[in-house]
Amino acid sequence: MDRYLVISSDCHAGLPPERYREYLDPQYRETFDLALPVQEEMTKLMEKQFLVGDINEEWRQGREHMLEGAWDHSRRNEVLDGDGVAAEVIFPDGITERNMPPFGAGISLPTEGIVPELQWAGARAHNRWLAEFVALEPTRRFGVAVVPALWDIGEAVKEVHWAKENGLGGIMIPVMWGRQSPYHHPKYYPLWETCQELGMVVHFHSGPAPTEDYFGPAPEIGKERDHPAMPGAMGIYISEVAWWNVRPLTFLIWGGIFERYPALKVSITEGTTIWVPEYLQLLDQRYAETHYSAKLGDYRSHLSMKPSEYFARNIALGASCMPRRETEMRHDIGMNNIMWGSDYPHPEGSWPFTREQVTESFIGLPEDEITAMLGGNAIRFYGFDEAKLRPIADRVGPTKQSLRGPNAASE
Amino acid sequence: MDRYLVISSDCHAGLPPERYREYLDPQYRETFDLALPVQEEMTKLMEKQFLVGDINEEWRQGREHMLEGAWDHSRRNEVLDGDGVAAEVIFPDGITERNMPPFGAGISLPTEGIVPELQWAGARAHNRWLAEFVALEPTRRFGVAVVPALWDIGEAVKEVHWAKENGLGGIMIPVMWGRQSPYHHPKYYPLWETCQELGMVVHFHSGPAPTEDYFGPAPEIGKERDHPAMPGAMGIYISEVAWWNVRPLTFLIWGGIFERYPALKVSITEGTTIWVPEYLQLLDQRYAETHYSAKLGDYRSHLSMKPSEYFARNIALGASCMPRRETEMRHDIGMNNIMWGSDYPHPEGSWPFTREQVTESFIGLPEDEITAMLGGNAIRFYGFDEAKLRPIADRVGPTKQSLRGPNAASE
Repeated sequence: MDRYLVISSDCHAGLPPERYREYLDPQYRETFDLALPVQEEMTKLMEKQFLVGDINEEWRQGREHMLEGAWDHSRRNEVLDGDGVAAEVIFPDGITERNMPPFGAGISLPTEGIVPELQWAGARAHNRWLAEFVALEPTRRFGVAVVPALWDIGEAVKEVHWAKENGLGGIMIPVMWGRQSPYHHPKYYPLWETCQELGMVVHFHSGPAPTEDYFGPAPEIGKERDHPAMPGAMGIYISEVAWWNVRPLTFLIWGGIFERYPALKVSITEGTTIWVPEYLQLLDQRYAETHYSAKLGDYRSHLSMKPSEYFARNIALGASCMPRRETEMRHDIGMNNIMWGSDYPHPEGSWPFTREQVTESFIGLPEDEITAMLGGNAIRFYGFDEAKLRPIADRVGPTKQSLRGPNAASE
Repeated sequence: MDRYLVISSDCHAGLPPERYREYLDPQYRETFDLALPVQEEMTKLMEKQFLVGDINEEWRQGREHMLEGAWDHSRRNEVLDGDGVAAEVIFPDGITERNMPPFGAGISLPTEGIVPELQWAGARAHNRWLAEFVALEPTRRFGVAVVPALWDIGEAVKEVHWAKENGLGGIMIPVMWGRQSPYHHPKYYPLWETCQELGMVVHFHSGPAPTEDYFGPAPEIGKERDHPAMPGAMGIYISEVAWWNVRPLTFLIWGGIFERYPALKVSITEGTTIWVPEYLQLLDQRYAETHYSAKLGDYRSHLSMKPSEYFARNIALGASCMPRRETEMRHDIGMNNIMWGSDYPHPEGSWPFTREQVTESFIGLPEDEITAMLGGNAIRFYGFDEAKLRPIADRVGPTKQSLRGPNAASE
């Protein structure tokens, strides 16, 4: 027990694109064969649009072998051991844009430029593969099924049942709803009810944002942009993207979803945690405000608790690569809601320097709080089997000594 | 000099709808006559949608006479005197939804369901009337022209010149751009250049937000909604609306607009001020972050200053009805950027209890800081003539004694 049990609440896995074929329902394979070269072309264009192709390529150099952990069972265990991570929560999009499920069924789950039926087919293909991947190492791997929930709630409910029956522990639904209904709409009630009943955790994973606003409309395939570069587009993206990821929570809270489904669990993943104190203060203020409420009609009598109370009870934060300044704010953010994550194998994640980054962010904090943020909160929220994970942690986890501050000996 | 010189950075004025006819270019009057009953019907529907019709009606009871200050010269001076306000910045939409310029040329400046040419015609009609209204009392009234800048930059630039020549001091442009280009797009450069050159202040006024997301799609005129009520819609609106109002600033800062136009002045009006510290911290962090920047390409070398430095230099905050908890945060928000406002004649404003609200928010703070927030910052930012306003303030302003804390005598 001299080592921490570390759980990464944010990891990614996915097959090389061509290997999704065999997991697709047969009737979509012909379309898949046609779409595959287009997807590869799109990937290149996207790398070009985001100006990150060369940089990511450089980052991958010499790491190809360990990046195969994105889909390879043994390699993945090697990586996790190396990182000191006992268990993980697995989202799609392995090596970022390189291992996306087909037909727009990756993290961004777009609502434009896709065909809902195909997006569903892609999601099911990924979920089938993921269930196999989790089954190879069920103690260490918590799989998150992709559920394009906007189009057809009946289909979504069916997929939640399938995921549960096949060993997956949660679902990821779209962060942005485009022209579909937002998440306070009553049409989603059966989805929340099913997730509550089956104990399936609902996830919103950061990434989506209105990139057309930032970069301008995407050019047609094979063409150059017909407008000048939009200065600072990436700066806008990284300033707004966390807000878009938190946005569904505003709709769920005011929509009374946690009032109707008090045991529903929602994780906001890789959206930073720095926004939490001001966000909760704002919502609580709006909830309490008699000046507004008197003039705007009744918007709160269906809520028996303050927004911050629903947050404390129903929400957890996938705190990927949590920086030092955020661990120092931990009590304002919510000591019980923070779940550290590594974001392997994404370039913005902590791998292969996880041990160093964890040390920088957590060194010198009280041991029980480190225990909670690095793993304890995730064990409770996701229901990991601590007894089974303990021997793994005892072998690979960071030592408690390594996270004691320089003054610990003299204390 | 024993009274404060108070300037309201956020007031509203507008004609009763039918009286805009004479200010319209003649070729639009026939359309106006057809559209007027539709606008009146829309107003009723909107009040119903927002569930505020009855409440606002009740608020207006017994105040009709003084609410005529929304368009009546003498009445307005009476109201301002009563509020202790020496001068004001005037936006459209007098009694909220009751005095909107025609054809969607009010505060919300929608991009859907309107005809750009007509929106322009409505804006020009309002601007003509406003120029007359300001001319009746030019020392006390700073007029903000409505400029639907999204559609045609040439037209926008012409209108800025017209506004300047006709005694208006700034422009209000849309908070939301719909499917048009956001404000970092180079197409807007001539607009910023003109505003800088003429010293015209650019305003974003709170109000617009994606209400369809909250309330569902608007029903057709005369029909009921074809979907169930969306629970908590108003709670979502009041939790998000300030964010939408600040959003253009993110695009301007990262777009390098304040780098290219270092003397451009922008006011963020009625958007609360509580978001400022975290917002600037986030943007500065993103600006400084080497981890991100290395992997996302160059998004900041066109900025010679930190985002918070542009903010301090180029931005002012129309701090309407600033509550006590925000005046207590004044140093984190920006002591030189805060400009108090009353929001007369809107129901959510401080009128007719402005003196009481000002006392509650400012009592006991240092005299020089009260001076700055209640008027000094606005004098500097907008260029009000302090010498001419002083005699008015000496007659109507709140006494310095009235804002001294209970302990002041013993200090």
